[in-house]
Amino acid sequence: MSTLPAPLELPTRLLHGPGPSPVPESVLAALAKPTIGHMDPEFMRVMNEVREMLQAVFETENQMTLACSGTGSAGAEMVALNLVEPGDRCLVCVHGVFGGRFAEKCRRAGGEVTTIEAEWGQAFDQAEVIARIHELQPKLVMIVHAETSTGVLQPIDQLADAAHQHDALLVVDCVTSLGGLPVRVDHHGIDAAFSGTQKCLSCPPGLAPVTLSERAMHRVTNRKSPVRSWYLDLSLVGNYWTGSRAYHHTAPVNMNYALHESLRLILEEGLDARYERHQSAHQLLKQQLEQRDFAYASDPEHSLPMLNLIRVPEEVADEAAVRRQLLTEHGIEIGGGLGKFAGVCWRVGLMGHGAREANVSAIVEALDAVMPAN
Amino acid sequence: MSTLPAPLELPTRLLHGPGPSPVPESVLAALAKPTIGHMDPEFMRVMNEVREMLQAVFETENQMTLACSGTGSAGAEMVALNLVEPGDRCLVCVHGVFGGRFAEKCRRAGGEVTTIEAEWGQAFDQAEVIARIHELQPKLVMIVHAETSTGVLQPIDQLADAAHQHDALLVVDCVTSLGGLPVRVDHHGIDAAFSGTQKCLSCPPGLAPVTLSERAMHRVTNRKSPVRSWYLDLSLVGNYWTGSRAYHHTAPVNMNYALHESLRLILEEGLDARYERHQSAHQLLKQQLEQRDFAYASDPEHSLPMLNLIRVPEEVADEAAVRRQLLTEHGIEIGGGLGKFAGVCWRVGLMGHGAREANVSAIVEALDAVMPAN
Repeated sequence: MSTLPAPLELPTRLLHGPGPSPVPESVLAALAKPTIGHMDPEFMRVMNEVREMLQAVFETENQMTLACSGTGSAGAEMVALNLVEPGDRCLVCVHGVFGGRFAEKCRRAGGEVTTIEAEWGQAFDQAEVIARIHELQPKLVMIVHAETSTGVLQPIDQLADAAHQHDALLVVDCVTSLGGLPVRVDHHGIDAAFSGTQKCLSCPPGLAPVTLSERAMHRVTNRKSPVRSWYLDLSLVGNYWTGSRAYHHTAPVNMNYALHESLRLILEEGLDARYERHQSAHQLLKQQLEQRDFAYASDPEHSLPMLNLIRVPEEVADEAAVRRQLLTEHGIEIGGGLGKFAGVCWRVGLMGHGAREANVSAIVEALDAVMPAN
Repeated sequence: MSTLPAPLELPTRLLHGPGPSPVPESVLAALAKPTIGHMDPEFMRVMNEVREMLQAVFETENQMTLACSGTGSAGAEMVALNLVEPGDRCLVCVHGVFGGRFAEKCRRAGGEVTTIEAEWGQAFDQAEVIARIHELQPKLVMIVHAETSTGVLQPIDQLADAAHQHDALLVVDCVTSLGGLPVRVDHHGIDAAFSGTQKCLSCPPGLAPVTLSERAMHRVTNRKSPVRSWYLDLSLVGNYWTGSRAYHHTAPVNMNYALHESLRLILEEGLDARYERHQSAHQLLKQQLEQRDFAYASDPEHSLPMLNLIRVPEEVADEAAVRRQLLTEHGIEIGGGLGKFAGVCWRVGLMGHGAREANVSAIVEALDAVMPAN
């Protein structure tokens, strides 16, 4: 290295992509509190309160509820690697990038994976999924609640009965929904759900909330083969979070402070008020965008409030250049498309702290300024 | 949940256990800078600078040098899962808890693991390890540079030649040594090394610096079977850090800010000055402890400067109570023993920012106050 880098100077961004989302000041302040030990009784108290607040946001009484020490993808992998053994039949519903990723994680766990697909931008008809559950009789069924690549909200209320009839576990990806839409783990009979901190929880990225039902934990504790990851092995991690408190790894202490504060803010606001705020910001943005002839890429019946998938207008020759201009001239981040939607869609997030009227106005004004028609 | 937890109020601790270590104010300030996107060009600059500074501290030119998005154990697992394929013979040197853990990680990767053991508190004779390398002809040899459970500094300068003679990769656990002792990856011919941010780097826990040689990456890119983890798959993670910048996961953005600042402080101080500071703080502590008849559990020829393993004196009936008293009455954390040393040893860390005369005095004064003889 030739010269020592200067201390970080970072631009201020209004984060309206697919996450990370805007982080409230008090969450950043919590993040910067002095580090204490990962075995300190005071940190155990922090962990306990994080667990209790996660249970409230997931709407579950699951004992095995914790913040996995990695980002959302680590949470997904924790679920896949702990619940799937070599040879296990898995049914994974793919209607975007993240279903496909979970299928890959199940394969790496040794699972025999069958995928079913829905058109990008569409939700699955639950009856179709249920028919495939009866047909395949898998040990695990997985579906994405809020597909971050397509902006689709997937109804999941009818799946647990069919899954449980065949002793299959129902796994739901709640990375983008948790904190912005009701997840209701216990009510919907979900056996395992995972999320990330940087979406509707409005905390920096770095932790993955995970919850598993007793049925799922029975599967974990009765495995025939060891979990293919030591770091994510729930029988070890779970002991640190909820059991004997035996040392497993050094938890990201400060990130847990930040999650503590972000969950506190969510519960202080109230879940229903928060969900309504996401809805009304979405409605306002949608109205403003449609007035400007932007078209949604997601089925209007199943569009996510916190992530708006819009088609790049034909008059835009270089969509990446427009996003870059939004970022550098207006300080606003929106996301490009992923997978099949790369280059043809934009992803406009209204997540957590950022789901507000003022933010919608800022986004729309900046779009007006950079669109070629203007 | 009955009542909402209050905003976090945390005690101030002087961290002198086996990590986390004291975090400088400017690192906490960097941690709390506003979150930006994980694909933002400004964050790419942060990642590049983190990589360059990690290369400087590891003393390597390895292209594949990055901060794995998990704690030290995730870094160890990234190395094991990427370098080991089912059936691969692995030789793992176990002289404490962390060698044993790496052996388990290799097993979970499908490796056929042979362990050799040294007495706890002793270093391996390198000649003995070399003889076993020639005998076993493994594909991977692993040894712990600084055993956090025994306080032993393991000489590693003679191992690479023997390993490379049989086309084996040399893996070294540098979790506790990096930033406090010379690691010299390229000079010693190390093929893969991993560390954690919360030891001698004096950054909060949450990231794992990892570096792999070209020889190691050749192994990764020529695997016959997929890596058993998608999250830690180096061909995917590496692309995000050093290649096409393709999105893989959402990096812990703020933790990377903190690591950036902590590496900056290390290089500003200078590696040699920093290593000397660790040595002189250790010598002072050792002198003070030995004056008080504390005995080291680690071989005096091979004792770590940053982690002092001392035997709990016989007159102490309840060692955990003494540590608790140090923590609650004096705000000082020291560590209990791990594994075979649980209940019989204490671990007194002098890591990173905490390796200073003033801290030594604080530790010794507090020990004087709580020891039963007084």
